[in-house]
Amino acid sequence: MAEHSAVEIIVAKRDGSRLSDAQIDWVVDAYTRGDVADEQMAALAMAILLNGMDPDEISRWTAAMIASGEVLALPDVGRPLVDKHSTGGVGDKITLPLAPLVAACGAAVPQLSGRGLGHTGGTLDKLESIPGWRASLSLEEISAQLADVGAVVCATTPTLAPADRKLYALRDVTGTVESIPLIASSIMSKKIAEATGGLVLDVKVGSGAFMRTLERASELAETMVRIGGDHGLPTVALLTDMSVPLGRAAGNALEVAESVEVLRGGGPADVVELTVALAREMLALAGLTDVDPAAVLASGEAYPVWERMIAAQGGDPSAPLPRATHVETLTADRAGVFACDALAVGTAAWRLGAGRARKEDPVQAAAGILLLADAGDEVEAGQPLLELHTDTPDAVAWARAALAGGVAVVDAPPPRPDLLLATVR
Amino acid sequence: MAEHSAVEIIVAKRDGSRLSDAQIDWVVDAYTRGDVADEQMAALAMAILLNGMDPDEISRWTAAMIASGEVLALPDVGRPLVDKHSTGGVGDKITLPLAPLVAACGAAVPQLSGRGLGHTGGTLDKLESIPGWRASLSLEEISAQLADVGAVVCATTPTLAPADRKLYALRDVTGTVESIPLIASSIMSKKIAEATGGLVLDVKVGSGAFMRTLERASELAETMVRIGGDHGLPTVALLTDMSVPLGRAAGNALEVAESVEVLRGGGPADVVELTVALAREMLALAGLTDVDPAAVLASGEAYPVWERMIAAQGGDPSAPLPRATHVETLTADRAGVFACDALAVGTAAWRLGAGRARKEDPVQAAAGILLLADAGDEVEAGQPLLELHTDTPDAVAWARAALAGGVAVVDAPPPRPDLLLATVR
Repeated sequence: MAEHSAVEIIVAKRDGSRLSDAQIDWVVDAYTRGDVADEQMAALAMAILLNGMDPDEISRWTAAMIASGEVLALPDVGRPLVDKHSTGGVGDKITLPLAPLVAACGAAVPQLSGRGLGHTGGTLDKLESIPGWRASLSLEEISAQLADVGAVVCATTPTLAPADRKLYALRDVTGTVESIPLIASSIMSKKIAEATGGLVLDVKVGSGAFMRTLERASELAETMVRIGGDHGLPTVALLTDMSVPLGRAAGNALEVAESVEVLRGGGPADVVELTVALAREMLALAGLTDVDPAAVLASGEAYPVWERMIAAQGGDPSAPLPRATHVETLTADRAGVFACDALAVGTAAWRLGAGRARKEDPVQAAAGILLLADAGDEVEAGQPLLELHTDTPDAVAWARAALAGGVAVVDAPPPRPDLLLATVR
Repeated sequence: MAEHSAVEIIVAKRDGSRLSDAQIDWVVDAYTRGDVADEQMAALAMAILLNGMDPDEISRWTAAMIASGEVLALPDVGRPLVDKHSTGGVGDKITLPLAPLVAACGAAVPQLSGRGLGHTGGTLDKLESIPGWRASLSLEEISAQLADVGAVVCATTPTLAPADRKLYALRDVTGTVESIPLIASSIMSKKIAEATGGLVLDVKVGSGAFMRTLERASELAETMVRIGGDHGLPTVALLTDMSVPLGRAAGNALEVAESVEVLRGGGPADVVELTVALAREMLALAGLTDVDPAAVLASGEAYPVWERMIAAQGGDPSAPLPRATHVETLTADRAGVFACDALAVGTAAWRLGAGRARKEDPVQAAAGILLLADAGDEVEAGQPLLELHTDTPDAVAWARAALAGGVAVVDAPPPRPDLLLATVR
């Protein structure tokens, strides 16, 4: 009976039909319990990827994923809860300055995160480069830190949307990651289960992002905003450029250091701009519209919140960050304009050891790439362009190969899009 | 590395690309060895189902399935080898009279068969209703029987196309059965590995067949004929009607009894017509064109070959066949024309116990349906129309429900197509 129903559901989606609410509820629950086999869910995921789901199906699928586990039962922490999620990009350390900034402005940020895979890195990996910092917290610790500090970035718990965890691992090995319904429901199920009161999405577009075109990114953003609305979670999405790296650092400790610069009122202009733009949307959802996050960030007032956020999770915010044993500098072979593709930099940083190929792999805290010029800058012949940092020098040649073609001095670089491309409400 | 390649292959087919020969060889071999997981092959099968394969891909996929095992090493049996395969239909017992007939005409038929699933029944299940008959033979027994009798119908060996066995079981539970490339390569890999010298395909079309439309059936037939040509196996396909049951018996022992009538020179006209048409094509492929199979069948000369074929596999051709403990007759509720849909009759026979839902289920030798009138016959009110045979009377109501709508006395029945619809060479 169980298998019979699984095949009927697969065939329905294969043949382009809409799945009923009962079919969606059953198949997600049965998969979580192990009554629908991995091979059946893989076939269904491929059918969903190729034939799609309509908005009501996607919302129901999300609801079923949430219902596979618990919704976080946070007590009143005395501040409005608001969170942010990024679809991931090269040098995307925005959560690090953003969470303390929003907390400094009066809201509370309960960000439960997963690990990074591939060239975009993960927020937990970045924070784990800080000596002593730990990602796993109990519900009591999360609640206390939200009330006290106003910001928590920690590992998600196994009880939130377990169907998503299982399905994500399956999609990763079955070529079924790139489905907007599956991506949107995966992200939103975890955020809705996290019980935040508002959500701002940073949907990246460009070579270094999961979504390469504005059209696909807009579709993903609209899908997620609609899911949020269907589940009573006010959600706003910013579409932002990821054709060049964000800031000048790509790699765990390197990005922490750059984030600290931003929290102290400095740092690269694009990181500041995006941090402020996201903070503004988060504060609006939290009902805190009379505070200017740009002024708070520039004043350095968010930095003490960062120190407390790190210390609350065992980290030493004043400890020196890990440094790579091997640093190699690349220089301009001619005069011209610096072109710097996000995917090339992200892949090179990953190859240097900053990211993982499989979820059980370790990452190097100090590995990565530090840009010494911004994309579009005029540079001289011989001018240093970027540093490769790694503890495994054997990886340098492989990393350099990733840069070939993507990082170069040219006569006319590709036009650089605006950082903030569009907003979906 | 292995998994990485599997994902690349899945993604390539998902995105509509042609798979390279190397990709096909690798993925079929790695799946057979267990290095590609079931969930990966399920996703690939769904991508193949939805995005297709071109003729060269299908031939290569077939070659890879053959290469996953052995090719039957038959010694010279002193006669030309020629086989037939049917895509399956309701009341399709044609192999039973056909194999002895072709042997009586001078060729040898090496038919290695699988088990039936669903409403169409399986040739081995039919023969196993004969007391003592066994399906499993050694290669030596097969060779000796081909030389001596000229016809063998037996279970396929585990060494022929093991990739197909594994993939077929996977497709069955993942909604990926209905793919012409996968159906065609499955059938042809087994027949090519069987080392027959010629092959005639009976591709069924209509409600009781796997292919419901002439267009889909033609595509399947053309695909298989092309695979045969690519592999040096002369192949001809007949497209034949399966909108009404073939003959008057659907069920294992009931079909054996009807086949014996045909072998003795009698039996239903449609069974005789199709048996002769297939025999003619097989004999042509075997180079035996100066014998008339219609005359041989009508004369009863094939019956002694049947007796020897059954006896050689331990069966007693003169033993009484099993009879059902419960027989119920349905009569016409009005005068009119008898309409008799193949799918309705096949499903009812299956529900009475003639077929299996899972490959490990048993079948009832005596269960099934015996028609007492032909589709299109004028019938009187109260005239007996069909008998339901079963050892499990509780199943009768469920079987009757399958007949509702499909078997009825009407004013104007649907037009009955010709039995022989087209030939693909």
